[in-house]
Amino acid sequence: MTNRRSSTSAAGKTAVPASPWRASHERRRDRELKRDAVIRAAALEFNRKGYHNTSLDDIAARLEVTKPTVYYYVTSKEQLLFECFVAGVERIRSACREVRRLELPGRERLNAVLRQYGEAVASEFGWCMVRAEQDDLSPAMSRHVKALKSEIDQSIRRLIREGIADGSIHPCDPKMTAFALAGALNWIAHWYREDQSMSGAQIAEAFVAVFEAGLRPRADGAVEATPRRRSRRTAPALAR
Amino acid sequence: MTNRRSSTSAAGKTAVPASPWRASHERRRDRELKRDAVIRAAALEFNRKGYHNTSLDDIAARLEVTKPTVYYYVTSKEQLLFECFVAGVERIRSACREVRRLELPGRERLNAVLRQYGEAVASEFGWCMVRAEQDDLSPAMSRHVKALKSEIDQSIRRLIREGIADGSIHPCDPKMTAFALAGALNWIAHWYREDQSMSGAQIAEAFVAVFEAGLRPRADGAVEATPRRRSRRTAPALAR
Repeated sequence: MTNRRSSTSAAGKTAVPASPWRASHERRRDRELKRDAVIRAAALEFNRKGYHNTSLDDIAARLEVTKPTVYYYVTSKEQLLFECFVAGVERIRSACREVRRLELPGRERLNAVLRQYGEAVASEFGWCMVRAEQDDLSPAMSRHVKALKSEIDQSIRRLIREGIADGSIHPCDPKMTAFALAGALNWIAHWYREDQSMSGAQIAEAFVAVFEAGLRPRADGAVEATPRRRSRRTAPALAR
Repeated sequence: MTNRRSSTSAAGKTAVPASPWRASHERRRDRELKRDAVIRAAALEFNRKGYHNTSLDDIAARLEVTKPTVYYYVTSKEQLLFECFVAGVERIRSACREVRRLELPGRERLNAVLRQYGEAVASEFGWCMVRAEQDDLSPAMSRHVKALKSEIDQSIRRLIREGIADGSIHPCDPKMTAFALAGALNWIAHWYREDQSMSGAQIAEAFVAVFEAGLRPRADGAVEATPRRRSRRTAPALAR
């Protein structure tokens, strides 16, 4: 008797013999899932205790595994911080890539990115995204973090410039405006841990509403116009 | 012979004998100046090396004094972080107090506070203002920091509510709007150290411009209206 036996499919064809070892793609997938769980546990512990006050033991304890198990997936605490950063910004980078394919005015593409940005910062990785600092990382990781931050900053500036060019964004300083928008969103990580009365998506939506129309009173909820013509005519009210 | 002698004023009246010891108010003033210099030096070192990587030796070295001299003015590194925080927020608190006396629409009073806020965050204390964290401070200091942050947050929300009430701010969620505005300003501390191409005042002004009018195109540079009447009439363009 053996556990290994040939299985026969419903169609009657003889299949390959089943192995007690999982297929290599399954093992890879399993390893990825466990690595993701380690990174997520690290993010949650960093959120709870701060980076400097969190040990690999804390992270192992949250996962109910030993510290060597954690070391099987990452080489150091700083790598965990780095991976948490990457997990958070990946959502924004993917939004930046996706909106490039959309045939929409610049402002709407920008808003789509800002919504994903807000949700990423409100996620468990938000704190690491905005707190992964030069001093806490190896020089190589630090350079990588800087490059990713700069890439996102440049994408937002580009969307602002495109919005100005297509008339969907009022002429402004793209650099300062990008800093103001990203700053407001990044800051969510500082207060969201203590005040989760709204979901990440709701916060992102509320922020986009503020960014879109500003504080000034509007005649009819919102005013649309073609800035390059500088006409004084106002367009019909937009719902918001 | 003695160095102590009575001096006679030009008017011929006999003055009090001069003392080689400075008057107590002068000593107090001197001590305050030196304490301020210690706090400022700490802020500059924290900016340069990060809080955790800065030692009291670094701060003493910057001032060209010994570590015991630094300890004469503050009891610990955490107290220095706390004092840097207080030095920064004091500027915002004082702006909040001052605008209460002004007979101006809510939005203009809010803008005045936001300008001071931006300048404070772009100052040498900005990094400590936004980075003074629970974990780095004693429980008492941490409670104090929290109370001051909450006071400023509440002042900004109040100004937004007042602006909505007097028609100078479009109806919005005061809490989310206050978070967005303060977040954008707080974030200045994260990028200003590396990019000082504009002054703190210029950045604050650029941010207020974004907050005021938002991204949407405007018919004529800006649109003013009384939101409660919801008329579709636009007011004359405002200079900006």
